[in-house]
Amino acid sequence: MIKAGIIGSTGYAGAMLTWLIYNHPMAEVEFLNAHSNAGSEYSDLYGNFQGFINEKTISMEQTEEKLKDIDVLFISMPHGKSFEIVPKALALGVKVIDLGADYRIKNANTYQQWYNVEHTQRQLLQRAVYGLPEINKAKIKEAELIANPGCYPTATILGLAPLVKNNLIDINSIIVDAKSGVSGAGRGTNVANLFCECNESVKAYGIGTHRHTPEIEQALGELSGKQVLINFTPHLIPMNRGILSTIYGSLFDKNINEQSLKDIYTEFYKDSPFVNLIDMPPETRNVKGTNNCRIYLKKDVRTGRIVVVSVIDNLVKGAAGQAIQNMNLMFSIDEKTGLKLIAQLP
Amino acid sequence: MIKAGIIGSTGYAGAMLTWLIYNHPMAEVEFLNAHSNAGSEYSDLYGNFQGFINEKTISMEQTEEKLKDIDVLFISMPHGKSFEIVPKALALGVKVIDLGADYRIKNANTYQQWYNVEHTQRQLLQRAVYGLPEINKAKIKEAELIANPGCYPTATILGLAPLVKNNLIDINSIIVDAKSGVSGAGRGTNVANLFCECNESVKAYGIGTHRHTPEIEQALGELSGKQVLINFTPHLIPMNRGILSTIYGSLFDKNINEQSLKDIYTEFYKDSPFVNLIDMPPETRNVKGTNNCRIYLKKDVRTGRIVVVSVIDNLVKGAAGQAIQNMNLMFSIDEKTGLKLIAQLP
Amino acid sequence: MIKAGIIGSTGYAGAMLTWLIYNHPMAEVEFLNAHSNAGSEYSDLYGNFQGFINEKTISMEQTEEKLKDIDVLFISMPHGKSFEIVPKALALGVKVIDLGADYRIKNANTYQQWYNVEHTQRQLLQRAVYGLPEINKAKIKEAELIANPGCYPTATILGLAPLVKNNLIDINSIIVDAKSGVSGAGRGTNVANLFCECNESVKAYGIGTHRHTPEIEQALGELSGKQVLINFTPHLIPMNRGILSTIYGSLFDKNINEQSLKDIYTEFYKDSPFVNLIDMPPETRNVKGTNNCRIYLKKDVRTGRIVVVSVIDNLVKGAAGQAIQNMNLMFSIDEKTGLKLIAQLP
Amino acid sequence: MIKAGIIGSTGYAGAMLTWLIYNHPMAEVEFLNAHSNAGSEYSDLYGNFQGFINEKTISMEQTEEKLKDIDVLFISMPHGKSFEIVPKALALGVKVIDLGADYRIKNANTYQQWYNVEHTQRQLLQRAVYGLPEINKAKIKEAELIANPGCYPTATILGLAPLVKNNLIDINSIIVDAKSGVSGAGRGTNVANLFCECNESVKAYGIGTHRHTPEIEQALGELSGKQVLINFTPHLIPMNRGILSTIYGSLFDKNINEQSLKDIYTEFYKDSPFVNLIDMPPETRNVKGTNNCRIYLKKDVRTGRIVVVSVIDNLVKGAAGQAIQNMNLMFSIDEKTGLKLIAQLP
Repeated sequence: MIKAGIIGSTGYAGAMLTWLIYNHPMAEVEFLNAHSNAGSEYSDLYGNFQGFINEKTISMEQTEEKLKDIDVLFISMPHGKSFEIVPKALALGVKVIDLGADYRIKNANTYQQWYNVEHTQRQLLQRAVYGLPEINKAKIKEAELIANPGCYPTATILGLAPLVKNNLIDINSIIVDAKSGVSGAGRGTNVANLFCECNESVKAYGIGTHRHTPEIEQALGELSGKQVLINFTPHLIPMNRGILSTIYGSLFDKNINEQSLKDIYTEFYKDSPFVNLIDMPPETRNVKGTNNCRIYLKKDVRTGRIVVVSVIDNLVKGAAGQAIQNMNLMFSIDEKTGLKLIAQLP
Repeated sequence: MIKAGIIGSTGYAGAMLTWLIYNHPMAEVEFLNAHSNAGSEYSDLYGNFQGFINEKTISMEQTEEKLKDIDVLFISMPHGKSFEIVPKALALGVKVIDLGADYRIKNANTYQQWYNVEHTQRQLLQRAVYGLPEINKAKIKEAELIANPGCYPTATILGLAPLVKNNLIDINSIIVDAKSGVSGAGRGTNVANLFCECNESVKAYGIGTHRHTPEIEQALGELSGKQVLINFTPHLIPMNRGILSTIYGSLFDKNINEQSLKDIYTEFYKDSPFVNLIDMPPETRNVKGTNNCRIYLKKDVRTGRIVVVSVIDNLVKGAAGQAIQNMNLMFSIDEKTGLKLIAQLP
Repeated sequence: MIKAGIIGSTGYAGAMLTWLIYNHPMAEVEFLNAHSNAGSEYSDLYGNFQGFINEKTISMEQTEEKLKDIDVLFISMPHGKSFEIVPKALALGVKVIDLGADYRIKNANTYQQWYNVEHTQRQLLQRAVYGLPEINKAKIKEAELIANPGCYPTATILGLAPLVKNNLIDINSIIVDAKSGVSGAGRGTNVANLFCECNESVKAYGIGTHRHTPEIEQALGELSGKQVLINFTPHLIPMNRGILSTIYGSLFDKNINEQSLKDIYTEFYKDSPFVNLIDMPPETRNVKGTNNCRIYLKKDVRTGRIVVVSVIDNLVKGAAGQAIQNMNLMFSIDEKTGLKLIAQLP
Repeated sequence: MIKAGIIGSTGYAGAMLTWLIYNHPMAEVEFLNAHSNAGSEYSDLYGNFQGFINEKTISMEQTEEKLKDIDVLFISMPHGKSFEIVPKALALGVKVIDLGADYRIKNANTYQQWYNVEHTQRQLLQRAVYGLPEINKAKIKEAELIANPGCYPTATILGLAPLVKNNLIDINSIIVDAKSGVSGAGRGTNVANLFCECNESVKAYGIGTHRHTPEIEQALGELSGKQVLINFTPHLIPMNRGILSTIYGSLFDKNINEQSLKDIYTEFYKDSPFVNLIDMPPETRNVKGTNNCRIYLKKDVRTGRIVVVSVIDNLVKGAAGQAIQNMNLMFSIDEKTGLKLIAQLP
């Protein structure tokens, strides 16, 4: 059994991680770390685990002592908080999967510019592998430190990768309009996330300034070999889970056949069990609670643009599920282990 | 592998059954029957199964031909529709689990009075076993025909059984105020179930006339050995899934200790892995997607009444999960097989 | 114009008060007081008022200076916070309508027992009038200090008053099972009120201990002339607004005709323009945004109990609308002024 | 009083019209027409009107007889259904405001291509005025026949008009990504609009094929004097009401100052009381139940694009409220009459 520790187990991504490891046939939870809730019964914080998990959360001090007992450390903390613990874990030979943003951006200056935090572990940036298995599988298998992708970037990069890799669209024409459920905002208390503030409304936020922008641009830049600037606009939707990313780009060849484009996607993802091209515009509910990404594409013959719609569960493929997928690869077990999840409807 | 057929696979309970059997390690779906949607790709009707189930639904005629190939038949149809198929399946030695109401009420006249349908298979009523495993486990193991309980009765009877069995409350004082998500109304199209009609509102319905009333009364009557009349008021809540049943009854012994009552529940359910007495009022989300029933009780010293709160997922413990639990028992496999489900939060 | 000040204008009831006064033809807002948000643009806190209200909230110190400029003071603060300001306002001849709980319970000891706060203005308790116009209209017209009823008590007392006043039910048989939207929990930040925590779930809370219990019992006691103990169980529903109270009681005369009961309600409320007896179980959405209370009753001939369903908007008839209705009566203008509101569907 | 008839009063737009006219100080409802529900009590169909409207819906035959009694006819029917009644009403001197699509597209061939219906009243197309008062106020005042704009076009055209009119963006760069509440789908019964199908999910639909596309293109074409092709992608959001349109376009002058752009909007809408440019990204809830359109704009200096976010209530400014605004203009009364509505929060 792979022994796993979770730092930040009391956020929504942390709780999803706990769920996935609890249900994983080859991994088990060694400890559940918490910050403000350290010392609480975990099942008092997440009532769904009552009768299943009978364990108290531990503090960071206790966590450090337990690092030596684990094989893999998952970190689900706000950006800027992981810098101390990561080197300690790595020094002990523990593999690290960071669900936060600290090791995603290769350029520390870019990181600092978008996140307003100084990066104090620059030497680790090149060791860190961006954990999007559909793009980086080989490197992930060898990695000690994974920068687990953000939720919006996961949906968006998967939606665009075949087009960008094959140089089919004008890299400077890309517009990403994304919609997320409220769990993306985390479990922190602020007025904006109250039920009565989110319910029965939709809004855009972080227009042109959202921190997932450089992450998407970096990945597309690597795929295309060019510098990429995109427009990215996230929106908040009154539902718990799910991201839908609607992506627009100008095709170089206006006459390219839609089926050809579909074939390119199918080929690109032929070894990616969690990504499916489908024939009808996808709904987030169909991937809820799963590690799947579903992609739909439509060539608009009138404008010569392609419209791609990509959906994931922000807490699974967009966070904890992808982290488990990375763990599976790092420990040389089947990528799908513990992730054969089908959404329940309704 | 247990080979299962599902009649009425396109309703919400049918879709949940399909999900559970698909994920069950010792059973498999042999056919998916549909009525108005016969001949459709199942994954066109339930997009969650896209990439997992690649099968067309079949008509009742095709279903009859396939009866000989299965071990167990699940029926999820409106009341009054099962009378023809059940005897045919039983005659072939197929075990039948009927999720509908037709075999729940032992007294055919009572059935006819509440359901406005003539019962044309009265001879089967005594062969049918009421499939609430926490009450009837021994009989279920021997049964050929299971009348799978209704969703409200499941939550309510489980909430009351220890009190009633032990003669602790005045059987004529019982008031059941239940709240259900909208999936309980099924997938049929009518204005009342549209998103904009249910959302942002709550209502009572079927006050004093809901068909689950005699089913609850029958079960409580059997437990107490007395005739029982209750008040039962269901309410519709703007959420997909979940039932919460709030139950009131007058304690015979006003001085009885709350802990004693809790001990009686714990004892009563000591062999029931899906029923848990908990210390805080339960929330439906904590059992969503699971076969669990959680019960909370509170003695009100001021009024001498007990208040019991019982929650289930109406489509799982209240329908398809309980059906699988019954199947497990009928085929002598562990009751929990395929049902070790934990809710995902949020 | 009636000049009104609002203390606690930034809670949900305060915001509804602001809306109602802004739309009232004979009243105007003189100041908007806030606690933690003092000094903010009101329309930054409530974006709906952008373009309509261009005013900053003021602190308690500023409020005290402005008391002399107003005719009526609305107070919407947590219990225990009004004791200082009320006497100051009354001393200046300002009429006071307190939406909080501090003057609702006549017996200060009962108040202290349920609210865990010492009552430091006991001498005002007898001057305070319980502001339920359908019961106390004459007294309200003469009052200087109104204790505006709680939301659950408003729905419940209106649902029960005709039965209790006419001695038709056993006063000790009353069970009140109430359901409320999340706005009842206010705009304070805590995890339990986050979108992802309330959405897709229902729960009971405060079973047997909710502070509205003694308020309901006091009102029913006054109507019946007897001491009353009830069971009261509130539930949280995933919607913004609305209360539905389902009420059960045992009829003394099991043979009484349902129509006679309806006639008694119609007679009782003949001068109450906001209360309507209707023929179908009411839905909260039909009174959303309005000052109306709709009541449905059903005699259950099987059990001899009556079931009453009463709905209101918790922020209007259950708080701010009722406060305006009281203001209208206190200032001798038509009770309906500024309150002729019809719900918008959907 | 302006006497108004409503054809199609039982759809959501029709019900909103009824609400607005009922609350309008200078208009009154003369009849409420229905199709499948003709002969029903209106308040049985829309319970919010119980106690306010005590009138039965009438059939089309009865409607024709009553045309002579009204001043204005509102039509809220599916496209293709208005062709018979409009000429009859006009012949009687009745002003007609058609909330449907039949007179919006000036080119009958374009209409037929997108709507798959033959246009049998082509001679009326030039008499019809596109009823977007912020663009066409002078013509609306003189009009006999108004083609009331679609909901998506209203939000989108208002969001783009100042840019397009002033030739600030590349007309062929426009991408419109719109999000709508479920009421936009109407009150018809189909599985896709059930609560359990829409709740907790988001989806795109009609990608590249939605019928509001040519309507938006026509309006932008008139404003710019050029032919316009856009990408338009609508999405369904789990809420009752509201449209948020996120609009992207390439600025000709990448160096233009954001404040200059804002000034252009302010100037453009200086005589438009319902349109406001605001400083924070708008939320649909802040315009719910109102005739307001709120617009936010952001210049993205990195890409040289402008992002405009425009919100309306799809049933008010996007349908019935705009129809009333048009009526006010046609009858020479203040545009704002009956439309001074502020959203209630929460």
